[in-house]
Amino acid sequence: MRTYQYNYYTPTKIFGGEGAIEHLLPSIQQYGNKVLMVFDSNTAHATGIYDTVVDTFKANGIQWWEYDKVDPNPRLYSVIEGAQLCKDNDVDVVLAIGGGSVIDCSKGIRAAAFYPDLSDYDGLWAWGASGKDIKETLPLVVICTMASTGSEMDGGAVIINEHTHQKGGSFHGDLFLPNVSILDPCFTYSVPPRHVAAGVADIFIHTSETYLDGGDGTYLVDGFAEAIMRTCVKYGPIALADPKNFEARQNLQWAAPWAINGLVRAGRTSGWTLHGMQHPMGAYHDIIHGQGLAILMPRWMKYILGKGNTVEKFAQYGVNVFGIDANLPQQEIAEKAIDATADFFFNKLQIPSTLSAIGMTDEHFEEMAADAARGSFMFYVPLTKEEIIEIYKQCL
Amino acid sequence: MRTYQYNYYTPTKIFGGEGAIEHLLPSIQQYGNKVLMVFDSNTAHATGIYDTVVDTFKANGIQWWEYDKVDPNPRLYSVIEGAQLCKDNDVDVVLAIGGGSVIDCSKGIRAAAFYPDLSDYDGLWAWGASGKDIKETLPLVVICTMASTGSEMDGGAVIINEHTHQKGGSFHGDLFLPNVSILDPCFTYSVPPRHVAAGVADIFIHTSETYLDGGDGTYLVDGFAEAIMRTCVKYGPIALADPKNFEARQNLQWAAPWAINGLVRAGRTSGWTLHGMQHPMGAYHDIIHGQGLAILMPRWMKYILGKGNTVEKFAQYGVNVFGIDANLPQQEIAEKAIDATADFFFNKLQIPSTLSAIGMTDEHFEEMAADAARGSFMFYVPLTKEEIIEIYKQCL
Repeated sequence: MRTYQYNYYTPTKIFGGEGAIEHLLPSIQQYGNKVLMVFDSNTAHATGIYDTVVDTFKANGIQWWEYDKVDPNPRLYSVIEGAQLCKDNDVDVVLAIGGGSVIDCSKGIRAAAFYPDLSDYDGLWAWGASGKDIKETLPLVVICTMASTGSEMDGGAVIINEHTHQKGGSFHGDLFLPNVSILDPCFTYSVPPRHVAAGVADIFIHTSETYLDGGDGTYLVDGFAEAIMRTCVKYGPIALADPKNFEARQNLQWAAPWAINGLVRAGRTSGWTLHGMQHPMGAYHDIIHGQGLAILMPRWMKYILGKGNTVEKFAQYGVNVFGIDANLPQQEIAEKAIDATADFFFNKLQIPSTLSAIGMTDEHFEEMAADAARGSFMFYVPLTKEEIIEIYKQCL
Repeated sequence: MRTYQYNYYTPTKIFGGEGAIEHLLPSIQQYGNKVLMVFDSNTAHATGIYDTVVDTFKANGIQWWEYDKVDPNPRLYSVIEGAQLCKDNDVDVVLAIGGGSVIDCSKGIRAAAFYPDLSDYDGLWAWGASGKDIKETLPLVVICTMASTGSEMDGGAVIINEHTHQKGGSFHGDLFLPNVSILDPCFTYSVPPRHVAAGVADIFIHTSETYLDGGDGTYLVDGFAEAIMRTCVKYGPIALADPKNFEARQNLQWAAPWAINGLVRAGRTSGWTLHGMQHPMGAYHDIIHGQGLAILMPRWMKYILGKGNTVEKFAQYGVNVFGIDANLPQQEIAEKAIDATADFFFNKLQIPSTLSAIGMTDEHFEEMAADAARGSFMFYVPLTKEEIIEIYKQCL
C-alpha cells in the first residue's frame, strides 16, 4: 500500500444538463472557425443535433467539413481519412458528435493531422501506439450522445488496426483529453435499447475492472466505484423501460466519465482483465464492446473465484453494489454476487448471454487468446492462454 | 429536476502518494525559474518540505523569494505583501506549501500580482470579489500539508477584509484553480490533533452542505458524497489515534478535494448554509474554520428538522453515512442522524462542542447574523437574522 503513487488529471471542461449545447459556439470559437465535424449520421439527425450545429455554424461564419464514416469499432483508415480532411482544409478544431467510437476516432484524427505522411499506415499505427513522439493535437470538442465509454472525459482511444487485427489503446495520453464535452441527457433518448444496455454494461465494467482488481486501503475510491455501479444497477433498467426518463439518463450519462477518468483508480493497480480478453474479440468480430464484456464477466468471476483475494473482494462487491446480506458467509455472498451480475446483465439489461447469440464462433479463439494472454501478467488473477480459451468456451 | 444545468472543470494536475514531491521540479520549471514560496513556517520545517524544496531549487538554478506571514484566516494585507514580492521580482510562479490558508492566500497573490496599484486596498478587494476584470493569474503549484479545505483542487479562496470584517469567496473562478497539486499523505503526519479534527470536519461539512441542500434525482452524486462522508467517519478517529497511519491519511487527503471541486454538486442547488453562518464568525474571531462549522452543524440540523424535506434527507444521510437501521421510522432515523453527527464531531473527533469553548462570546452575534442573513435566501432552509442568532445562542 505505501509504495504507490497516483496521478490524476482531467482538464476537460464539462457542460452538462438539458440545453447544454448553448455552450457549443463559444467552445468552438475559442479555437478558430474551421471545424471538422466527425459524427454518426443516424444519431446526429435523430437527435436534431446535426441541424442545431449546422444552423449555429451558418449563422456565425463557421466553416465546417463533415466525416461520418466511422465504424462502430473505429479503424485506422477512418483516422487517416479524417486527418486528411484536417490537413487539406487547415482545420482549427475537431467536433465529435456521437458515442465512444466517434470520439475515439476523433482523438486519432486530432493527432494524425500532425503526422507527416498519412499514406504510411504502419508508421502511423506505431506512432499512435507509442505516443512518445506526439507533441500536439488539434483541439477537440465533444457532443456526447451515449452513456458508455466515458471517452468524453478520458485521454484514451481504442482504434483497430484492420491489417493486423490489433485493437488497443492507441492514441492515448494527456494530449487526447477532450477540451470541452457537452453532456445533454436528452441526446441519449434515441439510443437503441441494445446499445443502451451495452453502454450501461460498459460503464459498470470500466468501474469493476478497477474496483475488483487488487489494491487495499482504497476505501474512498471503493465508495466512489460502488456509487457508479449502483447507479448502473438502478437506472439501466429504467432507461430501457422508459427511454425518456431524464433522471435515469442524467445519472447514467454523468456516471460514464467517472468510471474511466481516474477517479476510481487512484492508489491501486488495475489490470483490466475483461478488456484484455474482450479487445481481441472486437478485433475479429464486429460485436458491441459492452455486450462482449458483459458476456465474459460472470464466467470470468466464476473461473477465478477462490484465487487470490477474490472471495473477499467479490463479497464486498455483492454487499455494497447488489445489497446482498452482509451476514451470510463470505463464500456464499461471493457466489450470489456472481449470480446477481449475470442476472443484471442478461435479465435486467436483456443483454444476449452467449457469444454465439451475438454471432461469434470459436473460429479465432486461439489467436484471440494468444493476443489477450500477452497482457495477462497484469490481470487481477493472471491467466494462461489455455485458461482464456476455456473462459471463451464457457461463454459460447 | 429537468431545468438544471451544471458545469464541471478541474484542470489541476494531481501527483499523489508517498514521494510525489519528485514531481515538483518539472512542475515549477514548465513556468519559469523565479518562484514566490508562500508557506507556513512550522509545517514546512516540521515536515522537511522546506529543506527539500530549497535543496532542489539550489541544485537547479531556481531563484526564490519567501513569504511566511499568512494568518490562519488569511487577510488581504498578506495578499498585498505577497503580490508586491511578485511584482518586485518578476516572479514566474507561486509555490504554496501548506493548508487552506496558505493556498487561499496564494490564490489572492497570483491575481493581485497583476493589479495595477497595490496601495489601493478597497479597490483591490472589490476587484477580487467581483472577479470580472481578472484576466490572468500567475501559475500556482501547491504542496498540500493538510486534509481539509480542498483548496488544492478548487477555484475558490476565502480572504478576510480586515477593514470591514468581511470574509468570503473573493478571488474565485477558473483562473484560480491550482495548476499542479502535490499530495503526499506523509506530509500530513505532523498536523496537530485539533487541526486534524477540524480538517476532517471541514471535508465532511463541505460535502454535507451540498448533499443535504436540496436537489432530487441526484442518486449518483449522492453516492459520491456519502463515500466521502463515510471516509471521514472511518478515518478521522484513526488519524487522531495513530497519526502516522498512511491509509487513513491517504484516504482523508484524497477525500478533501472531491468534497469541494464540484464532483458532488452536479445537478443540484447548494446554499452552503453552515458556511454562510460560519464565515462571519471567522471574520470577528480567529477561530478554526472546521471547529466553527462542526459546532454549528448539529444545532442547525435540530433547528430545521421538520422544515422542507429535511426529515427525508436527514434519514437518507443517517442510513448511508452512519449506518442507522433503515427500517426505523424516518423521523427517528433523522433524530439519530443528528445525534450521530454530534457524537462524531464532539466525541470521536474531540472537537470542542461550544462556541465559548473556542473563546467566542455573544458580543458580535448581531453583526454576524446580519451578515449571514444577507445570503440566507440561498440556504437549504431559509433563515432570518433572528433565527440565525437563535442558532448561534444554542451553540454558546
